[in-house]
Amino acid sequence: MANINDNYLKLKAGYLFPEIGRRVKAFGQANPEAKVIRMGIGDVTEPLPAAAIEAMHRAVDDLSRRETFHGYGPEQGYEWLREAIAANDFRSRGCEISADEVFVSDGSKCDVGNILDIFGAGNRIAVTDPVYPVYVDTNVMAGHTGAADQTGEYSGLLYLRGGAENNFTPEIPGEPVDIIYLCSPNNPTGTVITRQRLKQWVDYAQANKAVIFFDAAYEAYISDPAIPHSIYEIPGARQCAIEFRSFSKTAGFTGVRCAFTVVPKSLRGRAADEKQIDLHKLWHRRQSTKFNSVSYIVQRGAEAVYSEAGKKQVSELVSFYLANAKLIRDGLTGAGLTVYGGQHAPYIWLKTPGKTTSWEFFDQLLNKAHVVGTPGSGFGKSGEGYFRLSAFNSRENVQEALARIRKL
Amino acid sequence: MANINDNYLKLKAGYLFPEIGRRVKAFGQANPEAKVIRMGIGDVTEPLPAAAIEAMHRAVDDLSRRETFHGYGPEQGYEWLREAIAANDFRSRGCEISADEVFVSDGSKCDVGNILDIFGAGNRIAVTDPVYPVYVDTNVMAGHTGAADQTGEYSGLLYLRGGAENNFTPEIPGEPVDIIYLCSPNNPTGTVITRQRLKQWVDYAQANKAVIFFDAAYEAYISDPAIPHSIYEIPGARQCAIEFRSFSKTAGFTGVRCAFTVVPKSLRGRAADEKQIDLHKLWHRRQSTKFNSVSYIVQRGAEAVYSEAGKKQVSELVSFYLANAKLIRDGLTGAGLTVYGGQHAPYIWLKTPGKTTSWEFFDQLLNKAHVVGTPGSGFGKSGEGYFRLSAFNSRENVQEALARIRKL
Repeated sequence: MANINDNYLKLKAGYLFPEIGRRVKAFGQANPEAKVIRMGIGDVTEPLPAAAIEAMHRAVDDLSRRETFHGYGPEQGYEWLREAIAANDFRSRGCEISADEVFVSDGSKCDVGNILDIFGAGNRIAVTDPVYPVYVDTNVMAGHTGAADQTGEYSGLLYLRGGAENNFTPEIPGEPVDIIYLCSPNNPTGTVITRQRLKQWVDYAQANKAVIFFDAAYEAYISDPAIPHSIYEIPGARQCAIEFRSFSKTAGFTGVRCAFTVVPKSLRGRAADEKQIDLHKLWHRRQSTKFNSVSYIVQRGAEAVYSEAGKKQVSELVSFYLANAKLIRDGLTGAGLTVYGGQHAPYIWLKTPGKTTSWEFFDQLLNKAHVVGTPGSGFGKSGEGYFRLSAFNSRENVQEALARIRKL
Repeated sequence: MANINDNYLKLKAGYLFPEIGRRVKAFGQANPEAKVIRMGIGDVTEPLPAAAIEAMHRAVDDLSRRETFHGYGPEQGYEWLREAIAANDFRSRGCEISADEVFVSDGSKCDVGNILDIFGAGNRIAVTDPVYPVYVDTNVMAGHTGAADQTGEYSGLLYLRGGAENNFTPEIPGEPVDIIYLCSPNNPTGTVITRQRLKQWVDYAQANKAVIFFDAAYEAYISDPAIPHSIYEIPGARQCAIEFRSFSKTAGFTGVRCAFTVVPKSLRGRAADEKQIDLHKLWHRRQSTKFNSVSYIVQRGAEAVYSEAGKKQVSELVSFYLANAKLIRDGLTGAGLTVYGGQHAPYIWLKTPGKTTSWEFFDQLLNKAHVVGTPGSGFGKSGEGYFRLSAFNSRENVQEALARIRKL
């Protein structure tokens, strides 16, 4: 009988979102009349930018005619999309990133998981706490951890604690590590890493020859020009950082599926014989062998996001969700709650009142206000006593949810 | 410095298709007037079925309105697509496959590679020779092999030889293995596994508790009703087989990107403590954590392939390419060459004349007939002295290529 990957058995069975789904379903069955407002999963609700819609219609038409038909595209993504990304997301901000350092993909979740394919065993890996669970689970699956303890933390990972005292942006570790996951603007806390702090991270990574996995899926929500959108705005980052970006939360592509990962050609890892190996080449080989890039239709839609009309429409979309976030922040603050995030991110991270646990607050909110959020404890030990609300919703739903919460 | 996955360094640098590309480019630069006909890579050339085009236009429109907008879909794929697949591809042929055993994906190449994530070390793995290189390379990357020898074969893999004497369908191995890759209709040889032989494989796998990875990406090309389209047509296969299918070569989706993998709930693997583990649950966990399913637009396009109009259009598309294949078979046979495949597959596998090697034949064909094919030796040791031509082309190009080859 074929041996399985035993590391999968270390994963905790009760994953966060299925448990939320179970409780919401049970509530719905017991209260069929209740109008539940979902502010849990970070999924967009507004239609796509018109520029992307038009471009995808044209792309579908291209595939209907022999002369304009497209079969297999380049595994790294079409040059016209990679060039638009390099020019608009990087060179326009002074980052030296070339089109052939950009790898188009079908999602940041996929890339963040798959990137571990090119790294070996024996690396010291740091994650923040609270943390986006995919960073941890994919390391468990890859065999980079031991078993979970009673609190759900895995041996072999270094957890960098975030809390109210450091505005949920953990300190630089006092010991060397090889790989660090950073997410700014942060999921789940909505907080951001300042330029000064990010420079400290890059300096630390360079000093320790570590690689930073920088997840910037929410960069479009940054509203303060002093905060970096890309880690490559920091000198030295080309030698120590891989950046993950997505069209999901900018252009509303959660159901369209397009993202990209930047692997600079200046990045190196170490082989068993101590030779320095080009990580860009390894990732290129991984993607060429195990991936076939993204639908031509979707890539045309993503390209249109960088047109003048597309940029304006995306900016309006982001402003709309940010206005929701401000309403939530102000509403909750007015209701006497302490809140974080929501200024440069679509997530509001609130302190549950008194000694209420995250799941107790979840149940209260569901049962009394018919509002669904995400318990902070689902993102790690330091998330206990906190709760995440998403600003991805209609204005009407946000206002209705706030009115109900105020009544509590 | 972060340790890399050293297994990547075992991969041979000169991958088949880049080398072909290099030679074709050099020829084009030296002969700018030559009209090169490409029959190398198996990429479709004809427009998509009209039913898929219409469905994708409607899906794009759905995303332009708040009421019909779709964000994240189920990670396994939408129920309506999985149900259409289970009903049309399996239940209609008497195979007991349910919708929730179907996992929609963005490509068979991806699935065939990623499936190894859920398997552990220490499995005895068999591949055929000639072989689709992705089966081998992904095992090398996963650390399931030793180094390559001078012939390019990796220690730790069992190569099952195919040749003219067995019509390129290797014999059942005389020793037990844990995982076996089978591809029928075959890439590269175009040959098929008969029902009787496939039953022997299923019996062997059951007796040895092995798992068969059955790649049926080309099943739509089967023109003899006696040949199985799915391994699940064979009793017992639900206990021993994972099947990979694609819309690429049926509906022309190479650039649209949609495929699916069937993992029956009755499949088991073995944990280190000897417990039997449900492989369906492991794959579900893998896909939920490292994948976010396929674009809503693409899934709607794939669903339309199963409409009455869609089925008719796909059948016409397949017939068109099969007629090309027949022209090539007949043309090459008439020119005195020995050919295999091309009757139930879009690939023709020809014996190079006399002692001509695969690459010598490649160069002759390119230089004298300006036709590009794929050297058989690129698919393994047993492919030496053979050559693959693809029937994916316009009728005009196929006829022109044959006229040029006949002149040689």
